[in-house]
Amino acid sequence: MKENNQEYSLASLAELLGLTLEGDPDALVSGIATLANAQTSDLSFYHNSAYFSDLQKTNAAVVILSQDAAPGCSVNKLLSDKPYLAYARASRLFEERPVRQTQVHITAVIHESATLGNDVSIGPNVVVEANVKIGDRCVIGANSVIGKNSVLGSDATVSPNVSIYSDVSIGCNAIIHSGVVIGSDGFGFARDGDKQVKIAQLGGVTIGDDVEIGAGSTIDRGALENTVIEDGVKIDNQVQIAHNVRIGENTIICGCSAIAGSSNIGKNCIIAGAVGIINHIDIVDGVTVTAMSLVNKSITRKGVYSSGTGLSETSHWKKNIVHFKHLHKLNSRLKALELIQKIKK
Amino acid sequence: MKENNQEYSLASLAELLGLTLEGDPDALVSGIATLANAQTSDLSFYHNSAYFSDLQKTNAAVVILSQDAAPGCSVNKLLSDKPYLAYARASRLFEERPVRQTQVHITAVIHESATLGNDVSIGPNVVVEANVKIGDRCVIGANSVIGKNSVLGSDATVSPNVSIYSDVSIGCNAIIHSGVVIGSDGFGFARDGDKQVKIAQLGGVTIGDDVEIGAGSTIDRGALENTVIEDGVKIDNQVQIAHNVRIGENTIICGCSAIAGSSNIGKNCIIAGAVGIINHIDIVDGVTVTAMSLVNKSITRKGVYSSGTGLSETSHWKKNIVHFKHLHKLNSRLKALELIQKIKK
Amino acid sequence: MKENNQEYSLASLAELLGLTLEGDPDALVSGIATLANAQTSDLSFYHNSAYFSDLQKTNAAVVILSQDAAPGCSVNKLLSDKPYLAYARASRLFEERPVRQTQVHITAVIHESATLGNDVSIGPNVVVEANVKIGDRCVIGANSVIGKNSVLGSDATVSPNVSIYSDVSIGCNAIIHSGVVIGSDGFGFARDGDKQVKIAQLGGVTIGDDVEIGAGSTIDRGALENTVIEDGVKIDNQVQIAHNVRIGENTIICGCSAIAGSSNIGKNCIIAGAVGIINHIDIVDGVTVTAMSLVNKSITRKGVYSSGTGLSETSHWKKNIVHFKHLHKLNSRLKALELIQKIKK
Repeated sequence: MKENNQEYSLASLAELLGLTLEGDPDALVSGIATLANAQTSDLSFYHNSAYFSDLQKTNAAVVILSQDAAPGCSVNKLLSDKPYLAYARASRLFEERPVRQTQVHITAVIHESATLGNDVSIGPNVVVEANVKIGDRCVIGANSVIGKNSVLGSDATVSPNVSIYSDVSIGCNAIIHSGVVIGSDGFGFARDGDKQVKIAQLGGVTIGDDVEIGAGSTIDRGALENTVIEDGVKIDNQVQIAHNVRIGENTIICGCSAIAGSSNIGKNCIIAGAVGIINHIDIVDGVTVTAMSLVNKSITRKGVYSSGTGLSETSHWKKNIVHFKHLHKLNSRLKALELIQKIKK
Repeated sequence: MKENNQEYSLASLAELLGLTLEGDPDALVSGIATLANAQTSDLSFYHNSAYFSDLQKTNAAVVILSQDAAPGCSVNKLLSDKPYLAYARASRLFEERPVRQTQVHITAVIHESATLGNDVSIGPNVVVEANVKIGDRCVIGANSVIGKNSVLGSDATVSPNVSIYSDVSIGCNAIIHSGVVIGSDGFGFARDGDKQVKIAQLGGVTIGDDVEIGAGSTIDRGALENTVIEDGVKIDNQVQIAHNVRIGENTIICGCSAIAGSSNIGKNCIIAGAVGIINHIDIVDGVTVTAMSLVNKSITRKGVYSSGTGLSETSHWKKNIVHFKHLHKLNSRLKALELIQKIKK
Repeated sequence: MKENNQEYSLASLAELLGLTLEGDPDALVSGIATLANAQTSDLSFYHNSAYFSDLQKTNAAVVILSQDAAPGCSVNKLLSDKPYLAYARASRLFEERPVRQTQVHITAVIHESATLGNDVSIGPNVVVEANVKIGDRCVIGANSVIGKNSVLGSDATVSPNVSIYSDVSIGCNAIIHSGVVIGSDGFGFARDGDKQVKIAQLGGVTIGDDVEIGAGSTIDRGALENTVIEDGVKIDNQVQIAHNVRIGENTIICGCSAIAGSSNIGKNCIIAGAVGIINHIDIVDGVTVTAMSLVNKSITRKGVYSSGTGLSETSHWKKNIVHFKHLHKLNSRLKALELIQKIKK
């Protein structure tokens, strides 16, 4: 259904994606769609048995699926051990490739000491400050601002209205969405009586290669050392990362999660949406934290962690939270009964 | 107290608002205020018995209130069955109407293929990309960016620093506040070993008529099909709406709520503040979810839903959460005692 | 480690910070670092016994610490009763002071009725609307927009891409980070059947002196009266403050907290990260609310408050939440047993 005016024969798709074709090599596809919505010129994919009836009825020209699932499919097939991954790769073929305008828009304000790589595209009203380095083939969206001494590796895509402060270093292939702020001051104060005295935030931010940062997310600069986001980290929208946090390679952080200062998240973790992680927490590699959980102590063992109560009807919930607030007493009452019964715990 | 240099006689107010006046038709009001703060040139309103003593003491020129409440009020009255709704309508009379500058600011960058309706106002440094269509009487605030092929219906107000990506369609009468991002990529990846492979987000965003979107909210584009916000939906600040979410007509979503991918919220729902809704959830029409609840399963019946524990003093709370973590055992101990007592559950 | 090309002798540091030096007055420092990372030209500080072994091994030129801790330190010392506060003050000496460019960038769009103080710096593409007043020595970052009639006191720093609506008043020494929105409409509607009728938000925002507002935070304008942030309040990133909220002096609000309409937070409170406060709540002075708690009733007594369940392994957690949903029944079962045993509660 989604197309970019490009057509692929099934033979060429099989080759581009490294898959085995069962079907007509000359059939053409010009779009990609779900099984249910696919038309006869669309590619589709099947990776989850919940969609089995859609598979049986699909009008798609061709379906990416596993060998096991092939008998359920009566249209052309592209066989893959990992059909969802193959779909991800196929989706890139249907992206609209902007005609690259390798130019600096006349309204952009670029400091004379900034260095721009080859084939860089800089949108209207972009501001690039002193000593900034922008790598080859970067695209900087309209009205974004890049502060002094910051560095963008090659092939970064920065959407409109992004704010990058000074002394931020970002690796190659970054994708940074609108409204993102990187390098704002960490939230550090020392008390002087009732007043707060600001601690200058003298560190920067270091971001590795292949990092994506979703719309409206904020990453603060460090107090003395840098805040660090390692290679391959994927950050969703409206995530808050405080000063001196470190996030390990390939970790995923879903929307609206907040990570407080100096916490250290391992590699290959999945932090679901709206999770809170307090400050000075360590989380080992490979941990999953489920949605809206609060991590208020370090996690030292790989596994899946949760907090919260689950959802109830409010009338029911109100009756239960009354007793939550007396759980301690409830336990004592139970103990008293056990004592009478001489039950040994 | 709030005024816009416009005066209304009570007779004209009664006519404009469709209300019955009890009092002096020639008295003038030039502002609107709470009962407690109103001065003798102000309109006020009474809709909640908590403010009854304020009603008795008010200096307002006139009060909007129900017939039932009229005896408690000694100043001029505008009678309404729905005084809060009448206040909402009255408030619009005291808005400052900007002298409409139907012009495109000289610094705006408008692609030659974009179509602007009649009486459109475009602020400084606005960027409008190719094939964008902007309806009659739209106002686009300074430094906002509207991406390729996007469409704004008539009478939309877009505040400064808004980012609208490509292929976003927005209906009539939209109000979009600063910092909003619409059409950023959904958060979709397929694993390839430890690495994440980005799934191109090929869908767009479809937003109906009469939708308001609060400051800093983000709405992602769909993966294959569109993210959909139906007519009359009101979205508060810092709300996150993930790819392929659908939100039904007239639903209200309060500040800082987060709705994960492919979830489907019914019509006329109220999602209170800081609620989390996980992915692939269905919520029927007319559901209310209270503040900071996590919706981790579909809601199939109209009603009010909650999660969480309620607030306690921390010292007390710590004693109770210890036992929350042993509720399962606590239940087993209770069962053991019941068995001894031969109590049948 | 962080430096700004400025060197200080220990004698001058002692004088600038009002501390007593034990050591070589002529030794020079050119940076500031943690005990573990400090090199021989760095200042460091010690305020927490967790870092005692770092203190013993540090290479720092000089350490700020208390008299009590001095015996554990073999390098030069600057003695302070409040070493963390002294560190905060010292950190300011190592900030990079931008060469102040007291100028209005040629691309800024400044309304002729706006008033700019002395030594004001206005970045590229900034938009300043009618009747705005900007105090002496303010710095307005690139692409920020300041709406009609708004006022900034002296010495404010506004980062790039900030949106300030009309009728916002901000005191002296403000620090406002990128992506902040101040003065957007409060979320107010009256129902008319299933539809929402917008209530015009006619109030403004009043912000005191010495306020810092973190990246991506949003503060709505009042419905009739103003939203008020008092002197010395510090607001972290992605905080949401709804219409007609009042926040008392010197209160700290950590990242991603959300405060709903008309709530009133006292002075000297600490609202930790990701806290939710529902509407029409009053919180007295000196209250601390711990991370991710929901305040769903007013707090009338100074103290520390929490909600939530704490974190568990998900497999364990699932067993317990089942019983949370039957706590009411569990209590009844316990009562029944107690009755049998004639235990008086």
